[in-house]
Amino acid sequence: MNYRMISRVLGYVLLIIAALMLLPLIAGLCYRENVLNFVITIGCTATLGFIMTRVKPRSQALFAREGFAIVGISWLLMSLLGALPFVINGDIPNYIDAVFETASGFTTTGASILTNVEGLTRGCMFWRCFTHWIGGMGMLVFLMAVMPMSGEHSMHIMRAEVPGPTVGKLVPRVKKTATILYMIYFALTVLEAILLLCGGMSFYDAVLHAFATAGTGGFSTNGASIGGFNSAYIDIVVTVFMILFGVNFNLYFLMLIGKFKDALKSEELHVYLGVIVSAAVIIAVCIANMYGGFFKALRYSFFNVATVVSTTGFGNADFTKWPALAQCLLVAIMFMGGCAGSTGGGMKVSRIMVVVKSAFADIAQMIFPRSVNVVRLDKRRVNSETVKACNTYFSIYMVSLLLTTLLISTDGFDVTTNFTAAVSCLSNIGPGLSLVGPAGNFAMFSGFSKIVMTLAMLLGRLEIYPLLVLVMPTMWRRK
Amino acid sequence: MNYRMISRVLGYVLLIIAALMLLPLIAGLCYRENVLNFVITIGCTATLGFIMTRVKPRSQALFAREGFAIVGISWLLMSLLGALPFVINGDIPNYIDAVFETASGFTTTGASILTNVEGLTRGCMFWRCFTHWIGGMGMLVFLMAVMPMSGEHSMHIMRAEVPGPTVGKLVPRVKKTATILYMIYFALTVLEAILLLCGGMSFYDAVLHAFATAGTGGFSTNGASIGGFNSAYIDIVVTVFMILFGVNFNLYFLMLIGKFKDALKSEELHVYLGVIVSAAVIIAVCIANMYGGFFKALRYSFFNVATVVSTTGFGNADFTKWPALAQCLLVAIMFMGGCAGSTGGGMKVSRIMVVVKSAFADIAQMIFPRSVNVVRLDKRRVNSETVKACNTYFSIYMVSLLLTTLLISTDGFDVTTNFTAAVSCLSNIGPGLSLVGPAGNFAMFSGFSKIVMTLAMLLGRLEIYPLLVLVMPTMWRRK
Repeated sequence: MNYRMISRVLGYVLLIIAALMLLPLIAGLCYRENVLNFVITIGCTATLGFIMTRVKPRSQALFAREGFAIVGISWLLMSLLGALPFVINGDIPNYIDAVFETASGFTTTGASILTNVEGLTRGCMFWRCFTHWIGGMGMLVFLMAVMPMSGEHSMHIMRAEVPGPTVGKLVPRVKKTATILYMIYFALTVLEAILLLCGGMSFYDAVLHAFATAGTGGFSTNGASIGGFNSAYIDIVVTVFMILFGVNFNLYFLMLIGKFKDALKSEELHVYLGVIVSAAVIIAVCIANMYGGFFKALRYSFFNVATVVSTTGFGNADFTKWPALAQCLLVAIMFMGGCAGSTGGGMKVSRIMVVVKSAFADIAQMIFPRSVNVVRLDKRRVNSETVKACNTYFSIYMVSLLLTTLLISTDGFDVTTNFTAAVSCLSNIGPGLSLVGPAGNFAMFSGFSKIVMTLAMLLGRLEIYPLLVLVMPTMWRRK
Repeated sequence: MNYRMISRVLGYVLLIIAALMLLPLIAGLCYRENVLNFVITIGCTATLGFIMTRVKPRSQALFAREGFAIVGISWLLMSLLGALPFVINGDIPNYIDAVFETASGFTTTGASILTNVEGLTRGCMFWRCFTHWIGGMGMLVFLMAVMPMSGEHSMHIMRAEVPGPTVGKLVPRVKKTATILYMIYFALTVLEAILLLCGGMSFYDAVLHAFATAGTGGFSTNGASIGGFNSAYIDIVVTVFMILFGVNFNLYFLMLIGKFKDALKSEELHVYLGVIVSAAVIIAVCIANMYGGFFKALRYSFFNVATVVSTTGFGNADFTKWPALAQCLLVAIMFMGGCAGSTGGGMKVSRIMVVVKSAFADIAQMIFPRSVNVVRLDKRRVNSETVKACNTYFSIYMVSLLLTTLLISTDGFDVTTNFTAAVSCLSNIGPGLSLVGPAGNFAMFSGFSKIVMTLAMLLGRLEIYPLLVLVMPTMWRRK
């Protein structure tokens, strides 16, 4: 394990976090608030970061396990330090609550322990939504975009942080790939903010909601979420952008370089859009009589399907009051989540496709033992390691879900609450059903359960391995 | 596809079913009931069976797909024909209900649509519990024990019917293996019936409850299930036998031939017993104050853990009234089920072990990409096909669970009811939570949902493939 190099990279992560915190500090100043909380946090973070970068590594080498360790530890540090501004100014007095809220922000979950969102200071509210934007694309991807690092080594970090079964480079250089991804991300965010401004949102609200949509996070400045604006135009803009941010960013890159056909041929995209449209239509039928007809219901069904499938978690209706089929469908697509290489969470569309296709290939093999059955995606053969990795991820996800549900059920809430809260945290969505529905929140859970769910959110965002390997003894064994 | 040979084997299955139905007919006669329903059913079944066995196959060859087809179709036929006695005498007037009840019997689920069990005629009640006993070990395993068939070919049938990731022969000849399994099964059933008689049950009740325990089914002659007898002795006897019938029968064979040490070394057995003891102790702590102390609570916690883990489904308490942790733990072990090669359902302990172990091996591989990580069970290496098959089964099980939940949620009951009813059917348990808890039943579901759940029970008992391949077009393609 190259501890010195790990310390150095973590140091840079902290320095960037400190720099990014200048934005909420400025936001606070604009509203003439006391920003001492940010000053203190930036001071601590920057100092710690500076010391850590001073460590001189003997070698620049980073391998898979260093990549996992860096990603796992930085996300833990980001959550622990990012929680300080909330605690210092008393917006969230309890540190465990603040870490939950911050982790929920960075992991783009959007689950909240706040019962009165509007009561936050403007600076903290900015920081809360901004964590979504930082976490959506990933802190370390950002680091790679701005830092000079050798490509081979930084690829291990990128692999550990970017969601999805396989991570490809758009262009040969990792640094350039990271820069392109962030540019697309930035452009889409600005575009959404402008469209929201046109819908009558204030500048502050428009920017913060664009942050929260871009990261597929779900924190709102409004206690009633997007529903609070009560505007069909805003609902539609947000729905479209939630769906857009759940798409693999590689497709946008392909479009940028003129390969529209290739981008639109993506099988994953077809399944993703297919699921959205079918689920939204079925749900609209279920809830038609609640919203004055099928077509009016489409506004609510599309919004809520998009919010769940992209794992954003904004709300414009309380779906815990919808019929059972609608609720079960929403929970089902919670597992799936967005496309690989998007900012969305969940198990990822392509991973589910590989798992299902490999299952059918195996069954075909059983019927005709001598036949050869390969799994194909976009007409290319998926190699057997990827198939295996997808199946493994699927099982570890389910086991994590089970453990999370069991651990939080010690609080004694009903089974639906526990189960959907666990799914929601692991898939980085935000709301669940029953007590944690769109109209509820996570305040009533015990400190223990909040810690468990904080870890579940991090597990989900980092796709389990970077955190899991931190606790495996083999990881720290010297070879 | 060797259609003629399939028809012939199916014919024998029907003849044996007809012969086995003589037992409930005799039971009915003993109680001086009208047994015309059995006479008619036996007549039809035997005639159809006789005609089908008259087909002369050109070759005796049976391969994997014929094995799946035979098992899949016989179980469908058994459920469809086995339901007739209930309908003819009006015990269950609705045919869909009767098929649900019969499939629930054969698959050893024990989920019931009856609201008044005591109202059944004695003959039908005998038949209902006897289906558990037939289904527990498997109709086709029985066929192989009594019929002359060549070993290589019948092995494909045995593989398709006996649960678990791998099916080994105890002795070189399949016929002898099947006979030994049925002898152990018979002996344990008789032993339990005797012990229940000693506890004050009537002969009729003792035999029927022994049938239902042996098959890990769960139908009782009493509306309040085992709890209705209100006897600690009976609770304990049934608890012990439920646990015993969830153990791999190969271990009993090893004990019979004196290899006690080998039998007790089984890793699967350790995990199985470990899960039972830990879950029962945790639950006893949760419910201690409801039953007058920890030690008194053990009677209920052990019984209910055993009933769920062995997938029997008897009840002696309404666990839907227990704290959330206890309920979530019970649902968690519903997924696992009994050991491979037992009469229990679920995903099987060894399969879960392989899935978890292979996940950890994969993670180790990720940390050290050049290391070699193999999955071992009982110190022997598990070959990669078995590992793959276990992972595939795990994913197909989850997808089936999702679809079942979605389809039955069209009835509009709450999410917990739908989800746990689906788990309960797929794992062949019987009760779930909420409306389908130990005090509830499945009567309120629509005909459509009952058909879905009937298929889910069959899918679970046959471990999905034999039914799934029936609807795959490749299956019926001529090569």
